Amino acid sequence: MTGPRRARSPEDKEQRRQGILDHAWELFQARPWAELTMSDVAEASGLSKAALYRYFETKEALFLEVEAARLGSWLHELGAELERLPRPASPEAVAALMADSLAARPGLPRLLSLLHVSLEQNVPFDVALAFKRALHDWLVRLGSQLETTLGSLPAGAGLGAALQLHALCIGLWQMADAGPVVKRLLERRELRPLRVDFHAALLTGAATMLRGMIPAERQPQEASARRQA
Amino acid sequence: MTGPRRARSPEDKEQRRQGILDHAWELFQARPWAELTMSDVAEASGLSKAALYRYFETKEALFLEVEAARLGSWLHELGAELERLPRPASPEAVAALMADSLAARPGLPRLLSLLHVSLEQNVPFDVALAFKRALHDWLVRLGSQLETTLGSLPAGAGLGAALQLHALCIGLWQMADAGPVVKRLLERRELRPLRVDFHAALLTGAATMLRGMIPAERQPQEASARRQA
Repeated sequence: MTGPRRARSPEDKEQRRQGILDHAWELFQARPWAELTMSDVAEASGLSKAALYRYFETKEALFLEVEAARLGSWLHELGAELERLPRPASPEAVAALMADSLAARPGLPRLLSLLHVSLEQNVPFDVALAFKRALHDWLVRLGSQLETTLGSLPAGAGLGAALQLHALCIGLWQMADAGPVVKRLLERRELRPLRVDFHAALLTGAATMLRGMIPAERQPQEASARRQA
Repeated sequence: MTGPRRARSPEDKEQRRQGILDHAWELFQARPWAELTMSDVAEASGLSKAALYRYFETKEALFLEVEAARLGSWLHELGAELERLPRPASPEAVAALMADSLAARPGLPRLLSLLHVSLEQNVPFDVALAFKRALHDWLVRLGSQLETTLGSLPAGAGLGAALQLHALCIGLWQMADAGPVVKRLLERRELRPLRVDFHAALLTGAATMLRGMIPAERQPQEASARRQA
């Protein structure tokens, strides 16, 4: 009953949906947001534009789901890596896990930096609701993982930490992801101090932020000794 | 020789330029970025569109100059307020000056949050160069003011602190400035933890970031005592 062209069963539809999300992610990594159209995604997925719109109402709704998938799997892996750190872990060790894994998949911070300014601005209510619910659960889990791993955050401070780190990551990505004119400018010796390397800046910023949340008397000796050196 | 319609002397041109920047700033505060056009600015300034483009090559170039003016005057005032703090000041006191003054002029963080994603993406080289040079000098000055005011940052850490605070401010503004659908969502009890109030979040985040830069043995007693309470 089901041909290759039209997905009819719920399983077929789900499979096609996943295929679209995968193609959209590939395209996103290969070209600038402004130059990526729903027609491109339809073509890459072997669908008509009308068929694509039956799955995703807007470009933003499609990429909000791409983001949910990528963010969810990154946080899942990050959680497992946090579990493996010796405890209590230093803020530097936690920051390194975050910075290394995000810098290794630059599409994700780039997508995160579009979240509030673009994606969430043009999505149907139910799509936004599903995303926010998932995001809430992930951030609550990340927050409690941060508390357990660092062993020194005030109880309940983890979620706040996760939100501040999210903000920092977005800001640093936008500063690091300069356009061609600014990139050329920042090669001048006088302006080099304004150059932001995403990985290095996130490593420093996230470690600093986490360290600042730890009461002075509970700061790990390791970090304190390193700063004195 | 000079009529009211056409600015001919350098002084007239400079005055007209300032007038355009003021009108553009007024308009920016009153409407969304995407709905603000060069035609609006020309009309508000009593100029033809062609005349406006003789002063500013693109909408982004115009608003980059608006940003330079507003950022410069804010940092000037902030510097004076930092001077007046009793020394060494606590990270919380410095963060409060920043958060209070930025929240009191919401157009500025909104403009800052457009800087990297929009403004700097479509400006002529010389406009971008002038902006970056000014920004560099301001951030270097702010950095050294932070070092002097806090009295406990490692020497030279101030500029890095200024850049991290800039990133944090951008990210938090974008999270706080939700579109109508997301704003409605965040009224649900289950999603309230994701609500970001710009002032409160910047106050906490900036204080945390600054505290994290201070070696543990130099943390001000005040802050340490408050955290234990």
